[in-house]
Order: sequence, then structure tokens, then C-alpha cells
Amino acid sequence: MYKHKIAIVGATGAVGTVFLKMMEDRKYPSVLLRVFASKKSLGKKLSYLGKHLIVEELNDDSFIGSDFVFISATTSISESIADLAVKSGAIVIDDSSAFRLSEGVPLVIPEINSEDLLNHKGIVSIPNCSTTPLAMVLGCLAQLSRPLRVVTDTYQSVSGTGSAAVSELLNQSKSVTEGAEISKNVYAHQIAFNLFPHIDELQPNGYTKEEMKMALETKKILHRPDLEISATCVRVPVLVSHSQSVHIEFDNKIKVDDAIDVLNNFSGIKVLDDVSKNVYPTPIDAEGKDDVFVGRIRSDNYRSNILALWVVTDNLRKGAALNALQIADYMSQMKLHV
Amino acid sequence: MYKHKIAIVGATGAVGTVFLKMMEDRKYPSVLLRVFASKKSLGKKLSYLGKHLIVEELNDDSFIGSDFVFISATTSISESIADLAVKSGAIVIDDSSAFRLSEGVPLVIPEINSEDLLNHKGIVSIPNCSTTPLAMVLGCLAQLSRPLRVVTDTYQSVSGTGSAAVSELLNQSKSVTEGAEISKNVYAHQIAFNLFPHIDELQPNGYTKEEMKMALETKKILHRPDLEISATCVRVPVLVSHSQSVHIEFDNKIKVDDAIDVLNNFSGIKVLDDVSKNVYPTPIDAEGKDDVFVGRIRSDNYRSNILALWVVTDNLRKGAALNALQIADYMSQMKLHV
Repeated sequence: MYKHKIAIVGATGAVGTVFLKMMEDRKYPSVLLRVFASKKSLGKKLSYLGKHLIVEELNDDSFIGSDFVFISATTSISESIADLAVKSGAIVIDDSSAFRLSEGVPLVIPEINSEDLLNHKGIVSIPNCSTTPLAMVLGCLAQLSRPLRVVTDTYQSVSGTGSAAVSELLNQSKSVTEGAEISKNVYAHQIAFNLFPHIDELQPNGYTKEEMKMALETKKILHRPDLEISATCVRVPVLVSHSQSVHIEFDNKIKVDDAIDVLNNFSGIKVLDDVSKNVYPTPIDAEGKDDVFVGRIRSDNYRSNILALWVVTDNLRKGAALNALQIADYMSQMKLHV
Repeated sequence: MYKHKIAIVGATGAVGTVFLKMMEDRKYPSVLLRVFASKKSLGKKLSYLGKHLIVEELNDDSFIGSDFVFISATTSISESIADLAVKSGAIVIDDSSAFRLSEGVPLVIPEINSEDLLNHKGIVSIPNCSTTPLAMVLGCLAQLSRPLRVVTDTYQSVSGTGSAAVSELLNQSKSVTEGAEISKNVYAHQIAFNLFPHIDELQPNGYTKEEMKMALETKKILHRPDLEISATCVRVPVLVSHSQSVHIEFDNKIKVDDAIDVLNNFSGIKVLDDVSKNVYPTPIDAEGKDDVFVGRIRSDNYRSNILALWVVTDNLRKGAALNALQIADYMSQMKLHV
């Protein structure tokens, strides 16, 4: 049985915390070697399998002896430390957008394109948390017909921004219910009982960077540079789990029953679809679960080659930590690490 | 100056309350004649222009002397009392789905199809609160090119369900922030920090009734039976204002600047679009305002005949009460009342 050694950078963040918890829950064969975080968390004790891990500061020797370094911090941290990790003999599994679209860096969802890992050069990226569920669903449904064009609008939780945003939503919600003034630190607009179509920076084409991540990353993962994806990414007052409404145009007619069949038989996807019994995925039900949940599956009311569906995923799990762990598993199994 | 007499059925509900407030704020030339509500509100005093109005029970003489009866209660109440109002000599302006698609009943947004009021037979319907903003935007942009197909996903506030849902969202939010158990009465699922793609009943075609309202009502308002509209309607933890992401395919290429121009020059629409300065419509900013707000206006990143945009409207105002008041104004002005 494989037994890899993992270091985590950003261990106290929203994704890092889930990564640690998932390793514990899975009684994972890996060894958690070291945990790193920003200055304000140095010396903090993190509980792991009954022991304490001390949060360390990064230095030149930090990654020696690690098989994998999982980085979930900021893009600039990833840019500044990835090389050091590779030079130390580790494989970087990176959660930032720093390398996702770089030539020679596999961008991987193991259920979809694990074969891309064979050509890694030390750095592997995981997709953005709003990309992974979409690429899973498209990759699965491509068994039935070639997807040509996707329109998707998202409902993304604040944990995608990080722990500070989770606190901001809770604090603002409390203030509103108590009739008190709210304070804003993380977002430009109030997020409690509000929402806004603005995630990451505006690009020259009028889409935001988050919306373009969904388009460009999905093309790379599916090896489909011709696939059209138009997204609107919206931040909503939900703590965990990203939802999205998806409209997919295929090359051929798709039957709803066939779609349900392939989705249900695909590893990592689960169909929840019985509206008359109030059954469909919701963010709260998806929280803490590993699957990409799909519901509201229907033929477009005018075009039989368009499918509309509703997709919800725990953005911290399959959207980040779980996908990274699955990559480490696969690479150990295939002896792809150094 | 016209001076019409209005009775309100459902005066203590979410929409009725706003209707009363708007009449007060506009120092409206109408005379508010009588207010009616369900049994639990009978005898309640409503403040109006410094006086008190007593909530009455409906009887056969209730509508005598009214020029307009505005009904915002349930579909079955509308069905049971509309005829009485018409027989009493009043024009019914109905906020339910009871008559919207009926032959001979104008379904009207005054900025778009006021001419349909000329043929009324005593009952006029106002569109569903998620339909009005979409039809406004489509009706406006049709000046540039014929819309062929619309994909839209909504973010609808709980006030669309009614006052009890507003209380439920606030109460559940308070419970969650205090770590207490939540209670559910209005919705099948928790709504605080959650959302679900289920508004109104499932139809045989896999769409919900709310989604089909958006499609069928918009076709009727725009006199465009061939227009394709595929919607996913989602309830979100927001108190007031409905938002929607809209993707419109036109017959011809549309320039973003031209779209901004016609939208900004259209009565009842206001463009808020400067993402780099965090300017775009949000539900909280739209609350209590009359306009349909539009932002994030961009060309589809692949097709120059598709426009993507973001639309937010106070569902209780232009989505309901304001639209009804505008219809009464127009009909009085044109002497269309009896």
C-alpha cells in the first residue's frame, strides 16, 4: 500500500482545514509531515489523529523529505515557493491559479483526465472550485454526445473566498437580525442577505477572471479548445458549497433518462432528482460530502440537443482538498512521484 | 387630473404593504377607498396619509364605488372575487397567475405593451415578479435586434413567497448565528445560508411553474409566441429584490455600447455597469427603488449576436405594486375605466 508524505502550505485556511480533516477521516495511508501557514498562525497547534502539529514558518529546508506539497494560499505564495518544493524533490499540488494554464502543468480531475499526470514536471494544478463540478458533468455526459456550448450561472459560497469571508457573512447576518450596523472588511458590498455578480477581477472582454477560469480551465481539462463556455459567477450568502445552473448544447439529441444513467454511473457524481418530493441538491445538503450532486435534469423546452441541469458541490472538498488528495493517491499508485 | 378610487385585497401582505406605501410616497392622486385582507387581519388599523384604515372583510357590496380593485392574495382568492369586482363596476388589476394567460385578459407592463389595455374586459393581469424585469429588458433591446432565444437563471428573494417567508429567513438566520436549532414552516428546505432550484410546482416537461410563467408570460407581453425562453428559477436567502443572469441571442450582432444606450434611455430601466469600481446592481441596492437595474453587459465571448447581462429589480415594486399602480394611472389617463 502506498504511503506518501504530505506537507501543507496554508494549513489553517478554509481549504487547508478541510484537507487536514479529510486526511483524518479517511484514515489516510499518507503521513502528514509538516504544516505551514502565514505569520499570524505560527506556533499554533493543529490537532491531527490525536497528536498536535505545530504550524511552522517556511524556510529553504521546509519541503525536504515530502513526497507532495499541497499549496492552498495565494497565487503569489504559490509562485514564490513552488520551485523550492520541486527542487526539494516533492511534487507540488497547487490550488491557486498560478500554473493552471501553463504549458507542462497538468490540470487534473482524476475521474476525467488522470492520464495528463503522466507528463508532469513537478507541478500539478487542481482546477478552480467552480470549474471542477462543471468539467465533471461535461466529461461524463460527453459519453452520450459531444458538448458544443455551455451557458452557466453560478451561486458561489463565501468559503470560496476564505475563512475571513465566512466570518464576515456570519457577523453581518447577526447584525442584520439584531438591527445593528454591519461592518465590511472582505467584500466591497454587504454579503448578508445580498449577492453580487463579481468574483475576481474584470477582464478586457467584460467577463471576470473567475468566469474566464471556468471557460479556459474546462477546455484544458477536457482537451476541447473549441468548446464554448459562457459563465456568470455570482457570490451568494451561503457558507459552504457552490451551486450552478448549467445549460449544455450537444452535437446530438440527448434523452434525460440516458443522462441520468451515465451521471449516476460515473464515479464521484450522484443524481438527486425528484422535484415533486423536494429532492434536488442544495448547498447545505452537499456540505461535507464528496460527490458532485446533480438534479433538475431536463430537456430544454425547445431544443432536444440542449440539457438543463443543477449542480451542487462542496467547494472545499471536491472543489479543492478532495481533488488534491485524489491526485496524490493516483500519483503514488502509479509511482509517478519522484 | 385623474383621481381614481382604489380598493386593495391583500392589503397586509408583502405586496399590499408596499402598494399602500407607494401610494403614500407618490402623494398619489387616487383615493384609497377600502382595504381587505384575510380573517386574521380583520379590524387591524393600517396607517395611510395620517389616517387609519380599518381592514374589512369582503362581502357582496365591498367593491361598489371603486374604480380599481388591486388583488394580491392567492390565485384562488383572485378566481373567486374577480367577477364580483367587475360586476360592481370596477376594473380588477390582478397580481396572481389566475388570469394572466387567459384570452381577453391584458397582461401588461405599461412601458412595453400599454396598448393591450385598450381591449380589456374588466380584468387586467400584472406579470409574475420574475417576468417583468426580463420582459422590460427584452422589449427595450428589441429596438436593436429581434431576440430569438433567452437562457436565464434567477436569484429570487423570499419576499416573493410572502411575509411569512421573510420572517422564516430572518428567524432561521438568527438561529444559525446563535448555534440554535432552526424551524421550518414555509419552505421544505432551510433557506438561511442555503438556496434551492424549486419555485412553484413541477410541470410535466421538467420545468417548474415559475419557470414556465417566465417563458409563457413574456411571449404574451411581447406578442412573440416564437421566442424561446429557458429559465431555472432559484430561491436565495435574500429578503427583497429578484436578480437574474440573462443570456439573449439576437437575430443580428449587437454592440455593447448600443445596448447600454437604449437601456439607459428606456423609461424604467437604469444601467449600473462599472465592475472595476464595484458598480453593478445588487438586491439590497435595488430594494425600495422603482427601476429595473441592469449591469455586467457584455458580448458573449464566442458569439457577437449574444448578449449577457445581470438584472436586479425590487420584486415588490416594479415586480408587483408599482406596475399595478402604473396600469391604474394609464387607464385613468386614457379613460379606459368604466
